[in-house]
Amino acid sequence: MAKRKAAILGSSGMIGQRFAHMLHEHPFFEVEAYCASDRSEGKRLSDVWRLSDVEPDPRLTSNSIVATDIEELVREGVEVVFSGLPSDVAGPVEDKCAELGLAVFSNAASHRMEPDTPILLPEVNPDHLASVNMQKKRRKKGGFVVTNANCSVTGLALVLKPLVDSFGFEDVSVATYQALSGAGYPGVPSMDILGNVLPYIKNEEEKMTVEGRKILGKFEKGRFVDSPITISASCARVDVRDGHLEAVFIRSDKTPTPREIASALEGFKAKPQELSLPSAPETPIIVRSEPDRPQPLLDSYAGTPERARGMAATVGRIRVEKKSLRFYLLAHNTIRGGAGGSVLNAELAFKEGLT
Amino acid sequence: MAKRKAAILGSSGMIGQRFAHMLHEHPFFEVEAYCASDRSEGKRLSDVWRLSDVEPDPRLTSNSIVATDIEELVREGVEVVFSGLPSDVAGPVEDKCAELGLAVFSNAASHRMEPDTPILLPEVNPDHLASVNMQKKRRKKGGFVVTNANCSVTGLALVLKPLVDSFGFEDVSVATYQALSGAGYPGVPSMDILGNVLPYIKNEEEKMTVEGRKILGKFEKGRFVDSPITISASCARVDVRDGHLEAVFIRSDKTPTPREIASALEGFKAKPQELSLPSAPETPIIVRSEPDRPQPLLDSYAGTPERARGMAATVGRIRVEKKSLRFYLLAHNTIRGGAGGSVLNAELAFKEGLT
Amino acid sequence: MAKRKAAILGSSGMIGQRFAHMLHEHPFFEVEAYCASDRSEGKRLSDVWRLSDVEPDPRLTSNSIVATDIEELVREGVEVVFSGLPSDVAGPVEDKCAELGLAVFSNAASHRMEPDTPILLPEVNPDHLASVNMQKKRRKKGGFVVTNANCSVTGLALVLKPLVDSFGFEDVSVATYQALSGAGYPGVPSMDILGNVLPYIKNEEEKMTVEGRKILGKFEKGRFVDSPITISASCARVDVRDGHLEAVFIRSDKTPTPREIASALEGFKAKPQELSLPSAPETPIIVRSEPDRPQPLLDSYAGTPERARGMAATVGRIRVEKKSLRFYLLAHNTIRGGAGGSVLNAELAFKEGLT
Amino acid sequence: MAKRKAAILGSSGMIGQRFAHMLHEHPFFEVEAYCASDRSEGKRLSDVWRLSDVEPDPRLTSNSIVATDIEELVREGVEVVFSGLPSDVAGPVEDKCAELGLAVFSNAASHRMEPDTPILLPEVNPDHLASVNMQKKRRKKGGFVVTNANCSVTGLALVLKPLVDSFGFEDVSVATYQALSGAGYPGVPSMDILGNVLPYIKNEEEKMTVEGRKILGKFEKGRFVDSPITISASCARVDVRDGHLEAVFIRSDKTPTPREIASALEGFKAKPQELSLPSAPETPIIVRSEPDRPQPLLDSYAGTPERARGMAATVGRIRVEKKSLRFYLLAHNTIRGGAGGSVLNAELAFKEGLT
Repeated sequence: MAKRKAAILGSSGMIGQRFAHMLHEHPFFEVEAYCASDRSEGKRLSDVWRLSDVEPDPRLTSNSIVATDIEELVREGVEVVFSGLPSDVAGPVEDKCAELGLAVFSNAASHRMEPDTPILLPEVNPDHLASVNMQKKRRKKGGFVVTNANCSVTGLALVLKPLVDSFGFEDVSVATYQALSGAGYPGVPSMDILGNVLPYIKNEEEKMTVEGRKILGKFEKGRFVDSPITISASCARVDVRDGHLEAVFIRSDKTPTPREIASALEGFKAKPQELSLPSAPETPIIVRSEPDRPQPLLDSYAGTPERARGMAATVGRIRVEKKSLRFYLLAHNTIRGGAGGSVLNAELAFKEGLT
Repeated sequence: MAKRKAAILGSSGMIGQRFAHMLHEHPFFEVEAYCASDRSEGKRLSDVWRLSDVEPDPRLTSNSIVATDIEELVREGVEVVFSGLPSDVAGPVEDKCAELGLAVFSNAASHRMEPDTPILLPEVNPDHLASVNMQKKRRKKGGFVVTNANCSVTGLALVLKPLVDSFGFEDVSVATYQALSGAGYPGVPSMDILGNVLPYIKNEEEKMTVEGRKILGKFEKGRFVDSPITISASCARVDVRDGHLEAVFIRSDKTPTPREIASALEGFKAKPQELSLPSAPETPIIVRSEPDRPQPLLDSYAGTPERARGMAATVGRIRVEKKSLRFYLLAHNTIRGGAGGSVLNAELAFKEGLT
Repeated sequence: MAKRKAAILGSSGMIGQRFAHMLHEHPFFEVEAYCASDRSEGKRLSDVWRLSDVEPDPRLTSNSIVATDIEELVREGVEVVFSGLPSDVAGPVEDKCAELGLAVFSNAASHRMEPDTPILLPEVNPDHLASVNMQKKRRKKGGFVVTNANCSVTGLALVLKPLVDSFGFEDVSVATYQALSGAGYPGVPSMDILGNVLPYIKNEEEKMTVEGRKILGKFEKGRFVDSPITISASCARVDVRDGHLEAVFIRSDKTPTPREIASALEGFKAKPQELSLPSAPETPIIVRSEPDRPQPLLDSYAGTPERARGMAATVGRIRVEKKSLRFYLLAHNTIRGGAGGSVLNAELAFKEGLT
Repeated sequence: MAKRKAAILGSSGMIGQRFAHMLHEHPFFEVEAYCASDRSEGKRLSDVWRLSDVEPDPRLTSNSIVATDIEELVREGVEVVFSGLPSDVAGPVEDKCAELGLAVFSNAASHRMEPDTPILLPEVNPDHLASVNMQKKRRKKGGFVVTNANCSVTGLALVLKPLVDSFGFEDVSVATYQALSGAGYPGVPSMDILGNVLPYIKNEEEKMTVEGRKILGKFEKGRFVDSPITISASCARVDVRDGHLEAVFIRSDKTPTPREIASALEGFKAKPQELSLPSAPETPIIVRSEPDRPQPLLDSYAGTPERARGMAATVGRIRVEKKSLRFYLLAHNTIRGGAGGSVLNAELAFKEGLT
């Protein structure tokens, strides 16, 4: 199949750079345009590059950033758009793209809760993708928007999926230790976070609850039906570059053994693995047995296996008591919980013939 | 009443320095000897001073550190000992002090779980102090050991006390964001924590559970009876100097309103306040209404009112859902959760005529 | 003498907060208005407080911030203005204040290099204050602007003064390790500085050279005459909250001994000490003999003597070789190198009858 | 040529891990034994792995650490030893290896200043390698020790080499911003460095001066003749993981233009490049023209070209004034300034037929 021409919106931001990195020499998509606001026009990707954990390929980073002109993108044959726009501007721009017939894979929150738009997490709810057919009908030229979830709930939902399926858990509390890159750039002022923890991230706890129920729910007869799961979140920012760590507490009348939990997690494979999607980790959930893992610094990216590279969640310190289960999980917030999530969504849509 | 002559054991460590700071010009106690291991002998307090948040009074920090010789302390008329020894050496040394008739106020874990030794938290369980009468009998010369709790459970137990009393809560989960000073000095290597979170602190979670039940329990008919409360903890270290932040989750069939929770917390006063103990905060629990507090940097020490200075716990972000209550709490780990706790214990014992 | 009514411009910023702190219960000045841009109007000082090293007095921090209206200030009897405005807006606002007859003590760079405006550092060039008489004549209502120096050159010039006077040094190189608060708020993004050093601060090196020559120069016959000193600076930002550390290298044909250097520095006293100005440190330069001092964390504020509190520079590690002298110096950038500098300037002007 | 069997001493440390990483699948050397003290015996490399910037190949990190037994190594046919031992134990162990006939490439300071032992930096002084022939004679079985330089002086000497050759500079001052990994593990306590700078590293400044003169000097007629260059250093530790940044000041009667400086640096190639040694960077010195580079986070490792990977020094911010030249340089302290330096030394020795 021919590669689809693609554009990245918000190329100068943290998510935009991850998109550029993950789409470089991608087998399904060819990036035609690195777009951003007027402010960045004429800069090169190398001028804005802030990812210290990946090798910036000089052929990639020498690309120029252009001001966003959607009609021009369409004229140039672009069919797929990856949006790393901030949520406060993403809504109308992404709508316009979809109206013009483009397939939009968005990291922004703007469209997540719409009744015909999926929050797609291919290992968890690949069937939700069918909802875009409703969008294709309502939109003038058959375009659509697919969103990925908030960065904090992504890792949690991925890990909960096999646990809910195997053990029927419904009662989850979670405290987060979230990385700075989740706030974008310039993001968190250094004066606020050096030697400190900020026990508040605007709207984050609500998103974890609401998005979590949609993601883990069903898409039936043309509508989304929420999962009955309750997710009570307390979200905090820590002075870490990448990787959201989460302390998860589950209450349940019957609790399996740590060994059973670990098996359910490690054995989990789903559609992206069956289809061998290019960005799919071989094992979506890695379980570590050391007493002090996962750690954001060691396990978010470089520490993960070659195939995973920030696309797997890591779980450790599984502890079980009567009616109570605890563990830590870690997921890379701008890869699995950001750009990588949207790229995987686009790969699934491509394989399903939707782009 | 005449001041009691006192000695500090472990003067060169993080807790020892806090003891020195809090006992400087204390109305009840006069420090005669700053003791440490041979290694530190001859150094001055100023040579080991690492507290960046308090003014080191030159008259204080010019004091010399001496090698510990308990018999010599007794000969010099020392009656009270404050122990900031590491737990792996504290046990026998503190025992020897008590056998020689000294009143020992210890920050170490060694004696906490003994059947005639209190984990004293004067706002929570002042009646537990009576257990030392059993020690006085068994020890040759009428000395005794009083311990303060592990630094993480101190703030939690203090905040839980009025909530348990008012609302009968029994089911608590807690994720911690613990400061570096809790690991002593040299403590956590910088290579491990810069830009990282360590989701493991040896024995900490067990201590929170076990000590919490003892502290919140009763001392009746000569024995300690555990509280039925369950505390499920996940403990992590963050790159913060002082102040343990904790995300607390409480499950309960009936939940009060946030306003009722705040009132119960803010209105809480107990024995140390009644007795106006010198180190007692006017209000043991401070409730903040801002969306992003408490923060370790701003609220652990300097941000607290003059009288509190690291001795109060701060609570914020109280959120209530059906059957579920969440908040963040913060307590200074080497003051309220360390040296300050033991000083307050000694003040109570002094007032009760035990020293 | 009656206290002068004063206003603080830029009250919500890092420098503005230091002004508020230092002018609280000041013997010469009474703050009538805490001004900032419309954006902050109606907030209280407590809402913007970010100084973690000082006790925010509740009577102080409960003050409200008002939008700046200079005519209104004049009508209310304000005579003195302390400006913590960012340099890009300070120029015209400070000019307007001076034109309306106010005495302006500014931390901004806007007026520093004007031919009748002093960069005042009272220990170094108190006679430069006379230049304001030229301003008083040219300005319509007799107001004037007095600036303090850039935060990096302040500590350096203070320390160089007795060395230049005693030994005639003229050839200085300096590498800086500058704190985050120097960049204001929000200032440096955390993603840029966590685990990093930024070897560039815009215009900083030029300011150190140019301002240093003016400060250390003369004011003679109505004009400023630059010092012949050369200052070659390399300025970098490090992940430190407060306190600019500087590695100073001096070349000279004849070099004194370390003991002679230390004596010249420690013995240095000047006009602020003679006049016992309220904010003057007893000893403007503290020399430390430990091998590993000064350190920003320990020596910027809390570690300094009661009278100094961020107003003294600290020098350590004095090393002399043939024709070459090296040492480290530290000065608190928002106190001595910022708000405190301007307050000291105002105190000198008050004593000299200029306000 | 057949690969030489090699062993790594000090495998569990920061330098040892870099050795393991750089020697994995090396064309000249085959690691037979990962040695460390008894304390680490039986652990796997994966248990001690702390390098967050490189992919730990599972085939590599599954290797077991063995206790060091030099006779046993010799019996197993090991011919080459890479020593990442701490300097306080390295001396006698390395001597014993050399006496038993092994070629030792050491990162420790113990032998650096011996009269027949080179501090080898292949781009700067490849001819110094000839000095080992003197060692081979004096040592019983023809073994020898080759050292690499202190991590701070390595980058400096590499950059000074073409400048000294082209412009005859002799007067250098340097202030360093050194990374934590340079202190090994556990190294710097986090309580000392969080939000701080430590303006002192034991012996470091002396090493920069003394080793710099030996490295840049000559080896003539069987003896080392120091370079006349003077290096005045002020060394400080900053809260950075890897990469020593240095602010360099050069005094000279005549100064070239920035363009001439940049050309001399960028054009520099030497023996390792001529011989295409496997670890040699294509360009030993990278010059960056951006105003704010080099930065430790972006330029130490990942940001360097594929071939360089921590083996090149990066120079930026070249500024020239009358008689004065300034720039910043950066070099990866545990790669170029540590293990990588020794590997390059061994590659040169191998090519020269010495191993």
